[in-house]
Amino acid sequence: MTQVKRVYTFGDGKAEGKADMKNLLGGKGANLAEMNLIGVPVPAGFTITTEVCTEYNSIGKDKVVELMKAEVEAGVVATEKAMNAKFGSTGEAFPLLLSVRSGARASMPGMMNTVLNLGMNDETVKIIAEKSGNEKFAYDSYRRFIQMYADVVMGVEAEEGEHNPFEVVLDKVKEAKGYDSDADMTIEDLKGVVVSFKAVVKKNAGKDFPTNPWDQLWGSVCAVFDSWNTERAILYRRMERIPDEWGTAVNVQAMVYGNMGDTSATGVCFSRDAATGEDQFNGEYLINAQGEDVVSGVRTPLEITLIGSKRWAERNGTSEADRVAKFPSLEEAMPGLYNELNTVQQKLEDHYSDMQDMEFTIQDGKLWMLQTRSGKRTGAAMVKMAVDMLAEGMINEKTAILRQEPNKLDELLHPVFETSALAAAKLLSKGLPASPGAATGKIVFSAEDAEIEAEKGEKVILVRRETSPEDLKGMYAAVGILTERGGMTSHAAVVARGMGKCCISSAAGLTVGRSSMSINGIEYKKGDFISLNGSTGIVYEGKIDTITPTLDGDFGKVMDMAERNTKMYVRTNADSPSDAKTAREFGAKGIGLCRTEHMFFEGDRIWAIREMILAEDLAGRKDALAKLLPIQREDFYGILKAMDGFGVTIRLLDPPLHEFTPNDLDSQKEMAEKLGIDVKVVTEKVDSLHEFNPMLGHRGCRLGNTYPEITEMQARAIIEAACDLKKEGFDPKPEIMVPLIGTVKEYVMQEEIIRRIATEVQAEKGVKVDYMVGTMIEIPRAALTANLIAEHAEFFSFGTNDLTQMAFGYSRDDAGKFLPIYIEKGILKEDPFQSLDQEGVGQLVEMACEKGKSARPNIKLGICGEHGGEPTSVEFCHRTGLDYVSCSPFRVPIARLAAAQANLR
Amino acid sequence: MTQVKRVYTFGDGKAEGKADMKNLLGGKGANLAEMNLIGVPVPAGFTITTEVCTEYNSIGKDKVVELMKAEVEAGVVATEKAMNAKFGSTGEAFPLLLSVRSGARASMPGMMNTVLNLGMNDETVKIIAEKSGNEKFAYDSYRRFIQMYADVVMGVEAEEGEHNPFEVVLDKVKEAKGYDSDADMTIEDLKGVVVSFKAVVKKNAGKDFPTNPWDQLWGSVCAVFDSWNTERAILYRRMERIPDEWGTAVNVQAMVYGNMGDTSATGVCFSRDAATGEDQFNGEYLINAQGEDVVSGVRTPLEITLIGSKRWAERNGTSEADRVAKFPSLEEAMPGLYNELNTVQQKLEDHYSDMQDMEFTIQDGKLWMLQTRSGKRTGAAMVKMAVDMLAEGMINEKTAILRQEPNKLDELLHPVFETSALAAAKLLSKGLPASPGAATGKIVFSAEDAEIEAEKGEKVILVRRETSPEDLKGMYAAVGILTERGGMTSHAAVVARGMGKCCISSAAGLTVGRSSMSINGIEYKKGDFISLNGSTGIVYEGKIDTITPTLDGDFGKVMDMAERNTKMYVRTNADSPSDAKTAREFGAKGIGLCRTEHMFFEGDRIWAIREMILAEDLAGRKDALAKLLPIQREDFYGILKAMDGFGVTIRLLDPPLHEFTPNDLDSQKEMAEKLGIDVKVVTEKVDSLHEFNPMLGHRGCRLGNTYPEITEMQARAIIEAACDLKKEGFDPKPEIMVPLIGTVKEYVMQEEIIRRIATEVQAEKGVKVDYMVGTMIEIPRAALTANLIAEHAEFFSFGTNDLTQMAFGYSRDDAGKFLPIYIEKGILKEDPFQSLDQEGVGQLVEMACEKGKSARPNIKLGICGEHGGEPTSVEFCHRTGLDYVSCSPFRVPIARLAAAQANLR
Repeated sequence: MTQVKRVYTFGDGKAEGKADMKNLLGGKGANLAEMNLIGVPVPAGFTITTEVCTEYNSIGKDKVVELMKAEVEAGVVATEKAMNAKFGSTGEAFPLLLSVRSGARASMPGMMNTVLNLGMNDETVKIIAEKSGNEKFAYDSYRRFIQMYADVVMGVEAEEGEHNPFEVVLDKVKEAKGYDSDADMTIEDLKGVVVSFKAVVKKNAGKDFPTNPWDQLWGSVCAVFDSWNTERAILYRRMERIPDEWGTAVNVQAMVYGNMGDTSATGVCFSRDAATGEDQFNGEYLINAQGEDVVSGVRTPLEITLIGSKRWAERNGTSEADRVAKFPSLEEAMPGLYNELNTVQQKLEDHYSDMQDMEFTIQDGKLWMLQTRSGKRTGAAMVKMAVDMLAEGMINEKTAILRQEPNKLDELLHPVFETSALAAAKLLSKGLPASPGAATGKIVFSAEDAEIEAEKGEKVILVRRETSPEDLKGMYAAVGILTERGGMTSHAAVVARGMGKCCISSAAGLTVGRSSMSINGIEYKKGDFISLNGSTGIVYEGKIDTITPTLDGDFGKVMDMAERNTKMYVRTNADSPSDAKTAREFGAKGIGLCRTEHMFFEGDRIWAIREMILAEDLAGRKDALAKLLPIQREDFYGILKAMDGFGVTIRLLDPPLHEFTPNDLDSQKEMAEKLGIDVKVVTEKVDSLHEFNPMLGHRGCRLGNTYPEITEMQARAIIEAACDLKKEGFDPKPEIMVPLIGTVKEYVMQEEIIRRIATEVQAEKGVKVDYMVGTMIEIPRAALTANLIAEHAEFFSFGTNDLTQMAFGYSRDDAGKFLPIYIEKGILKEDPFQSLDQEGVGQLVEMACEKGKSARPNIKLGICGEHGGEPTSVEFCHRTGLDYVSCSPFRVPIARLAAAQANLR
Repeated sequence: MTQVKRVYTFGDGKAEGKADMKNLLGGKGANLAEMNLIGVPVPAGFTITTEVCTEYNSIGKDKVVELMKAEVEAGVVATEKAMNAKFGSTGEAFPLLLSVRSGARASMPGMMNTVLNLGMNDETVKIIAEKSGNEKFAYDSYRRFIQMYADVVMGVEAEEGEHNPFEVVLDKVKEAKGYDSDADMTIEDLKGVVVSFKAVVKKNAGKDFPTNPWDQLWGSVCAVFDSWNTERAILYRRMERIPDEWGTAVNVQAMVYGNMGDTSATGVCFSRDAATGEDQFNGEYLINAQGEDVVSGVRTPLEITLIGSKRWAERNGTSEADRVAKFPSLEEAMPGLYNELNTVQQKLEDHYSDMQDMEFTIQDGKLWMLQTRSGKRTGAAMVKMAVDMLAEGMINEKTAILRQEPNKLDELLHPVFETSALAAAKLLSKGLPASPGAATGKIVFSAEDAEIEAEKGEKVILVRRETSPEDLKGMYAAVGILTERGGMTSHAAVVARGMGKCCISSAAGLTVGRSSMSINGIEYKKGDFISLNGSTGIVYEGKIDTITPTLDGDFGKVMDMAERNTKMYVRTNADSPSDAKTAREFGAKGIGLCRTEHMFFEGDRIWAIREMILAEDLAGRKDALAKLLPIQREDFYGILKAMDGFGVTIRLLDPPLHEFTPNDLDSQKEMAEKLGIDVKVVTEKVDSLHEFNPMLGHRGCRLGNTYPEITEMQARAIIEAACDLKKEGFDPKPEIMVPLIGTVKEYVMQEEIIRRIATEVQAEKGVKVDYMVGTMIEIPRAALTANLIAEHAEFFSFGTNDLTQMAFGYSRDDAGKFLPIYIEKGILKEDPFQSLDQEGVGQLVEMACEKGKSARPNIKLGICGEHGGEPTSVEFCHRTGLDYVSCSPFRVPIARLAAAQANLR
């Protein structure tokens, strides 16, 4: 039996671990080991593995401590040796002080516990004071250690509504002595604080503060493991999709101090610019300070490089003299150490082939690196760095692609707020980030007003309880949409994303009336300014300027790389020639979903469809449909032309007919007048169209099969448009899609109509066109019987919105009532309308692909649900063998990148 | 290569086919062959197989005629020999005349074509006249043949709005001669008619009537094959679930005549009484008549037996003298032939071991049997015959069980109309037969009125647009329910079936107002009488008396047989102790579905649940729930006691909360007053509960997981009741069922609550109870992930109503708009809410069973959807390996029988 190795030491240029052992040692531990191996100066220490965390959670604290005891003790000995110090020393040797930090596979900033200065007690503090020649530093560290340890390990903290008992002690001292800050305390004050702190511990924890360094160490290690299962850590993991099973490693490392005087310093730095991607070393530091001082904002941190310092001074209007005197760069203040740091950062970036985010401490003139990791970056920086590093030969194309976060491309495609303006803005509410981008404008409460105001040149935000297809023109006219209700796949959200327009839905505390709205009690009227950040879901008061980003050359280069490395292609969901054009510019190769009903709301078309609905018989319906025919033909002509040469999947009429009729009596009266019939007839018709569950009602091919004349008209419009284009020398490729198929016969009946009409039209026009007939797979039963359907259908397009609704039994319009609670409680890891549920819905997709191919090996497979633009779902589609994904125009680049990544993985 | 045999001859005590070749020869053909083999006199002939019909439909008429030509010709020769006649004889031999009839595997009465007297032309008619010595008979047969052949084979029929051209000829003759009926025509008249008929054919068909008997034969055979694909035949097959692929056989048989004078006769007879099951030979006949005369009603048919004749006379007030003179029985009129017939019928019943329905003809003193088949019978007769025949040793228990039609038991369980009263009743409308039985009463339009009138002792019919849980008490009070909307699984239908109460839903032409209703334009007010037949869906005007059938001993014997031969047991869906008792009497072994929410509507309970809904916080909700606890405990106590010793599956709260709140403002005001809050609060709450698709909304375990306190209360009520019963010496077996599970975590969270509360309660009460925790499988995703769920759940109960809704994407409340059209067009073979869709939904059930067993081999499996009482679905459940099915109390006997049949098959 092999002994399980639980502890990996590092230090003095040696290490038992290395960079690729992240799963076992956590990100931090693996990089600490790796830095040692490549000769970067790192305080020695050791890492307790993530597997121990798992053991800890299953077999319990006592057994685990027993199992790792010998290895930890050996780790301490190794650290003592490397650092030339002794843990708990009360004699000749310098006492070794330790930090104990968590370090999981993925970063969980601020979520987990840390203990610093461990190893101090009444004896060691004296020796440290003596050996360091800095008594104040020694006692200051001691009192910090007691407070931190008592909090983290012993649970001594403020009672609800009370002040923190340690702060109470400090406040008393400062008040008595008239000090402004902790730093003013004298050595004697600090010694008194230590005594008081220990009394606080005794009183609050019911036991003495542990003086034995080993007890301190075990207490800290276990506290870090315990912190893996705090509520906030669990919640964070849920949000960031980090599995609970991963566990955290614990890093025990020798302390180094940036606060030992003016030859000491501490800072954070980046090998490139995280905001712009520029290849410029940068960062911040403070002399005679601890790491927390740099980030806490109590002191203004200084720039590390001279160039950074000069830029900073310029931004802040600081004179060069003042800058040099009060805000010198590290490059100026400690040129030798700066050079050393610069060399190290370059070495680390070269070694990891990626932009590094590093922490360092200079203790009494010696540089120590405490952490290195790949740095977070903006979307723009992500793109630029990848392109630059590829050009520099630092990375290859595969890495350049895989290193992109597809969702971050979004930042490059939508307007953003001006950072300066944003700082002062008042936050009003947070809702769902339903469609990304930033928008600022005047409030309007109706689609009509939106059109009127936009006509005048005003930028307007359309605020509605929820939107319906009747609001479409208003949504076009608005720069942003805000709704009281609805989820990520509500009408507002889906349509806004399609338009690339910013939208926030289900804003907290928002109540929308007819001519005003209130947000958490504050009233806003038509014409008031608000601003929306659709990428974060935040609603701001007033006007905030926005900037429209430009797609520079690097973006194009990344897209080209994706193109070269992809197997699955990307289509778009588009209902108009202009959307089709936008998407084509973004690299869409065809349309995966063209919703014909959206066209019915424009202009006077709605009247023709209403006339059809109200017709008493087939003849009346055919008359009304005859009016729609030329309009639809024109629509299809435009769209097929915009996508010339690529397939265009056109879905036949899908929504229930009541979506085209008005619900309020006034509009019904208007409708009756317009159509020259009794209002009672209208009201009765609207009543008769009412459904309890319209999502499961008379819609999709159920319309086409009960009113075949609708299918006939639409098929005719499509094929006529295609024939006309063909004659003009274009290459139209319509793919006619029958929606909501549940049984093969439903499909066969629709297909028969389509093919019959297509044959007729082609004969009339004297030209042949390439067309396909297929179906959407969006009903579970269609997936279950896909083999039968594929005997007839030439293509399947997965309508994963409806498939998700029916597989889960969730109405996307209503799920807002429980989905957020489900995600919070961890019942669902994520919103299945945003990220395809591979465990459940995915089975239906796989099943349908398999069964479909068994009946028709060359069947064309795609997805046109909202998931088509979501990276993990795109990866699933690739694995499942789909030919393409289709998404809204503004998600096309994201999907293309995700598709390439899926192929490379 | 073996030669395919297409023609099977029979006659003269020999036959190439036999009874068990029904699939190939059709029912009629197989029995004609069999009768020959057992020595029953049958006119000779031959059968063209059903396979030829299939060939006919695939390769076409000409090729098929070519393929079977030689065999048909040989068949005619054999027939000639057996009958001592010659087809198309113009010389010495008597001309052989033939009948050509369809004969499919299943009976399709009146759907298909028949040609009689085939082989006649101007030559043969003369010889027949001469040889038979009956010239009038010969020419009468000839003119009938021309008309029939012209209609069936040549398509000569009345133009739209015109009279039938043959009838026009006959009318002219009768008018000119002043005759009352066709029978008055003289030989000369008939000869003139023949000439005129041939002219009609020439004019209408554009060609001469075929004089060649062989042309006539081929024309007729093909016409029968063609009639397989007429619209009405296709529609009939769809309704009766007869596959199109079966095809029909064609029987070509020598004609015999019951109309050759007073020594000839024809009739139909039954070996037992088809209405009562009594073992009494019976039937009707006419002397000197053709078969169609017996059924057409032009002449009053006579009774075959003396006892039948006497009974008939008694019923009709006919004196014995009159009876003997004008209405003699065959037993009296032709005693020798009667004895022969009596022997044959006994022989046939013995041979087939079942009640026979026979046709016979006596030609000139000789008895010929033309057809025998198992006779149709009423439910009561079905039961009695099976029990009698088993006692007689004619059949064994297996046959006795398999011969029952489970659905017919329904007739024995519900009231029926008095036949005499029914005859005069005016039919008003036809709707869906939503719940069987007959009811008659005064119309009321509200649940309240129903209660008030019932209180007064009135029988009332509750008429509603649709029903909701608020109507429950009114439904209890009513004798029948009639709704304007809703399908077979609408609220009204499901609840009515549960109560065993007659219900018709979606009545055609019905519009329900507040205080009146109109059916197809006629207005009815409160207090008017109507009558409903829930078994047929027919609504009658006025009062029609009903009879309540009693369950006699034979019914019990059939149930005992089912019990001995079953593997799967039957539970019931019951929400009250009284329903539980009824079902137990019908043989239910436990409850498969107890819907706790139904209990919430009784009495003042609704107020407690409304208080809970309106509570502002957890504390308020808990207060309100505390009021419900003792009420629910009492409910469960009663139900568990009624089902003592059997499992009782109790489903936790399932419907969306808005079902408990009133929608109209008046009721909202009442609610506000009652609860002492502002009506605005009520209105806002009701608004906030509104859902677009409540079926896919916040309901089922989504309630329990967002409001765990509801689950806590219900679990407590169940376990407390069980503990109390246990202490009293009962054996309660609650099975707590979590509804609407889609993910395993939803289940686990609910299970944790239930088990925690159960442990608490058992500790409090100091007693242990047997309880299980499991879930309903009604969401497709639950079926897809059943292996994960079964790791925790102890049982699965298939909620096939919801599973069907979500697998098809049909809302059962709305599907009425397209389902009837879908069934009519053949897109669906049957309503999937009535008969489980094995092709699609069935896959999910099978998948869940398989996956469930893989994780928990002994998992208990059942079904509690409406399908649990439908025989073909029950058979599917048996095949799939379920432990039990559960259905409404009044379907329990049906399900028990179906389960036994499934096991025996």
